[in-house]
Amino acid sequence: MLAVTRSSLPRVPWRVCRAAYATAPSLNPVIEQDIHHFSKILPSTSVVSTLSPVASPASDLDQFNNDWMGKYKGQATTVVKPKSTHEVSQIVRHCWERRIGVVPQGGNTGLVGGSIPLKDELVLSLANMNKVRSFDPISGVLVADAGCILQSLTDYIAPHNHIMPLDLGAKGSCQIGGNVSTNAGGLRLLRYGSLHGTVLGLEVVLPDGTILDQLTTLRKDNTGYDLKQLFIGSEGTLGVITGVSILTPPAPQASNNVILALPKFDNVLPLYKLVKQQLSEILSAFEFIDRTAYELAVKHGQGRALSDEDVRGAACFVLVETSGGRREHDEEKLNHLLETLLEAEKPLINTGVLSQSPAQFSSLWALREGVTEAISKEGKAYKYDISVPLSSFQDVVDGTREHLRSKGLLNDSAVKHVIGYGHVGDGNLHLNVVAESYSPEIQAALEPYVYEVVASHRGSVSAEHGIGSMKTHALHYSKDEVSIALMKKIKEIFDPRGIMNPGKVLP
Amino acid sequence: MLAVTRSSLPRVPWRVCRAAYATAPSLNPVIEQDIHHFSKILPSTSVVSTLSPVASPASDLDQFNNDWMGKYKGQATTVVKPKSTHEVSQIVRHCWERRIGVVPQGGNTGLVGGSIPLKDELVLSLANMNKVRSFDPISGVLVADAGCILQSLTDYIAPHNHIMPLDLGAKGSCQIGGNVSTNAGGLRLLRYGSLHGTVLGLEVVLPDGTILDQLTTLRKDNTGYDLKQLFIGSEGTLGVITGVSILTPPAPQASNNVILALPKFDNVLPLYKLVKQQLSEILSAFEFIDRTAYELAVKHGQGRALSDEDVRGAACFVLVETSGGRREHDEEKLNHLLETLLEAEKPLINTGVLSQSPAQFSSLWALREGVTEAISKEGKAYKYDISVPLSSFQDVVDGTREHLRSKGLLNDSAVKHVIGYGHVGDGNLHLNVVAESYSPEIQAALEPYVYEVVASHRGSVSAEHGIGSMKTHALHYSKDEVSIALMKKIKEIFDPRGIMNPGKVLP
Repeated sequence: MLAVTRSSLPRVPWRVCRAAYATAPSLNPVIEQDIHHFSKILPSTSVVSTLSPVASPASDLDQFNNDWMGKYKGQATTVVKPKSTHEVSQIVRHCWERRIGVVPQGGNTGLVGGSIPLKDELVLSLANMNKVRSFDPISGVLVADAGCILQSLTDYIAPHNHIMPLDLGAKGSCQIGGNVSTNAGGLRLLRYGSLHGTVLGLEVVLPDGTILDQLTTLRKDNTGYDLKQLFIGSEGTLGVITGVSILTPPAPQASNNVILALPKFDNVLPLYKLVKQQLSEILSAFEFIDRTAYELAVKHGQGRALSDEDVRGAACFVLVETSGGRREHDEEKLNHLLETLLEAEKPLINTGVLSQSPAQFSSLWALREGVTEAISKEGKAYKYDISVPLSSFQDVVDGTREHLRSKGLLNDSAVKHVIGYGHVGDGNLHLNVVAESYSPEIQAALEPYVYEVVASHRGSVSAEHGIGSMKTHALHYSKDEVSIALMKKIKEIFDPRGIMNPGKVLP
Repeated sequence: MLAVTRSSLPRVPWRVCRAAYATAPSLNPVIEQDIHHFSKILPSTSVVSTLSPVASPASDLDQFNNDWMGKYKGQATTVVKPKSTHEVSQIVRHCWERRIGVVPQGGNTGLVGGSIPLKDELVLSLANMNKVRSFDPISGVLVADAGCILQSLTDYIAPHNHIMPLDLGAKGSCQIGGNVSTNAGGLRLLRYGSLHGTVLGLEVVLPDGTILDQLTTLRKDNTGYDLKQLFIGSEGTLGVITGVSILTPPAPQASNNVILALPKFDNVLPLYKLVKQQLSEILSAFEFIDRTAYELAVKHGQGRALSDEDVRGAACFVLVETSGGRREHDEEKLNHLLETLLEAEKPLINTGVLSQSPAQFSSLWALREGVTEAISKEGKAYKYDISVPLSSFQDVVDGTREHLRSKGLLNDSAVKHVIGYGHVGDGNLHLNVVAESYSPEIQAALEPYVYEVVASHRGSVSAEHGIGSMKTHALHYSKDEVSIALMKKIKEIFDPRGIMNPGKVLP
């Protein structure tokens, strides 16, 4: 890191201000003099603050202080929206010198409170850093500002017949910098792998304002430790990602999907094995939803894929998607798979419905993607995003249901449903407990119960959502003390003053 | 990291021994008392040493003190070959306490001196840690000791219809732990991505002997900083990798290849774009060899793919490989590609030869893979393994040739050939300068010239071979001072005593 020289210190004589409401004993709140300083660095439209001289109405801060679920609430007085890496660097350096906590915020679509201030930290929104810097149609390498919205990037490269290597429900709002900071998984991970493999380079403003320029477009570079990997999934606690270089795959020319009804969960794994063998490189999704999830999706208008008769006797469902370079080849492979499945002596499936049109294709996906929305319509959800061995998916769901029943909490006025769905191909189960309302009893019945179950399987308490502020206390269920001690040392290297997204990730 | 307790210190009263020939001012050589200690930890067959009481003949150390090219030479007196992680931990902890340098050594197939002691460090061979720990045929996750040979792992999973996500020339000798430590690239990177994406977990003995257990088999785990990434490509300077968990893809059911002759280099990129579009997900290699490389391969018996007439007028050649789930589909795609290429109004290629049998398939690959051997038969090679933008491949090769010509060094008694070949799909060029013999003049003409050219393209001075001891002085051409300073801080966290593979990677 470059040394902070005396001349780079601000000229304004800062009051030392350690108010009781600061986020940590050593962090200071934003005060008027800071606003004065930010106004020198940024145009007036880039500073939103309830403090003078800006004096925005408090409601202007709402979207930055609250998450979309209404679960987390910050008390930031000030949001800055820099337009360039240089501006980010100046802001961060100022906060470093003044020991002001900084919360980098992308699309604010996270599920674990990672982008909401714990108290009154400065919110640094990347929303105004939204330019594509370059795209090379030969190599497929895209370099973009961190604030670019995922869907915009998808649209940008579509004319070049490329797609983003990740796709998720929040694509219309989430930003690529936030995706990288949270190591977002999503629907294409099975096919294109994780961001640890597809992100080629990063530009990061370190907590002291130094710019770490590793924004390479090289696919291979074995020159020393791969520092950028540390920022992937560190949720803004080590620095502010300002630029991303990412490898985008060629767009598939054809996509198909099919929904399969299975008589019992035990058939899911043999089915997965067979599907992998037969569809091989064109398999792009293998998604599991249990019967309860299916019925909720149908109940709340997320489409109906199967007839009543087909659903009868089904314990769960699997959505299989293919993406390939030639429609007729893919269809032949998929038809062959269905024949094999239906003509087997001991069939793994009861029935299957193959989409026949783009509308049907979308409708089958709506069923799977609509589970989240259906759950939110049904009640209040306790959401656990976990990785466990594939073979344990159903045991974890059933075990949780039985556990709640044994506590007398499985009834219409407490827990209404215990639901499992998720990405079988990634070993990622979304365990959802849908209650009439949030209550301390249910919370106490679920935690640490669920985390202990996960730990007993050597699983992950956060497969793709991250730790944020929600799960810092649960980190030790997935990482041992040696790992956590090393993480703390790494935090100390990058951010010895603890200003970057304080209170997140590490306990 | 766990604290080293007093009781864990060795009982033998160690002499403080800072001989002039130690690798670094603070490191000690192995002495007889250390041998005594190792003999308590390990069976006698696991300690090779010229020191008493083992007193092996010096020749027993040769294979550990020399690399296969005969370029690097160490002076280790002692090699230990532990059989378990626990044994590795005990050895390393002892070296930590005694401040003895440790060089982890896998198959010793590297090209940059990373596994050869600089002086008289202890060599810790992983060769005896060669057990597969588990393989899950459903998920494809393989967990193996670090010392497992790549080919053995390939053979182990073949009956389950899975393949390793990496393949390289040294597969018969190189070990998976060494592959991970050096972030090996190889021939399958285009298809399956880098080890940063496919390695799921690692078990590492840290420099103080603590075991870092991150040997998860989870595909997704967003719980804190992804520490294992730091060990991928750190060449044994942060700890000893003892176990690897890796995702293996399903084996393709069919593979085909074709060699294409191009009239000029400028056609390579449009060809690559077209091939990517048409072959999409079944494209598994796109390898480039220039005319000189082709002719050398043919001259030294690496097969002949094309007739004299076909070769006439060819500036370079491209080997395209497909791997897919169904032979007839793949052949149809490949044939369609060849038709498109040959019937184009302005053809990108002169001609193409499609392999028609497994023997022909191997023969085309032998041509590409035989370039290395042909070069070693032709003379002494200066090998540069660089990443530069695809469009600059030929310019870098031609520019180097002209540079040597301008220095009067391009003639039969100095530099005979300047050759370019490599992985177009990965942006990875192997620039080889073949000389009659190694000479200071040629060395001085090539370095820093080549590194400066690479830096001017924002390229990598080591795409896949690593830094080792060969390129520590050149690291700054690819990484700026901010990055190098952070790397040094990370080294300091893990290895404050500097015992792990001293003198490698960092200048």
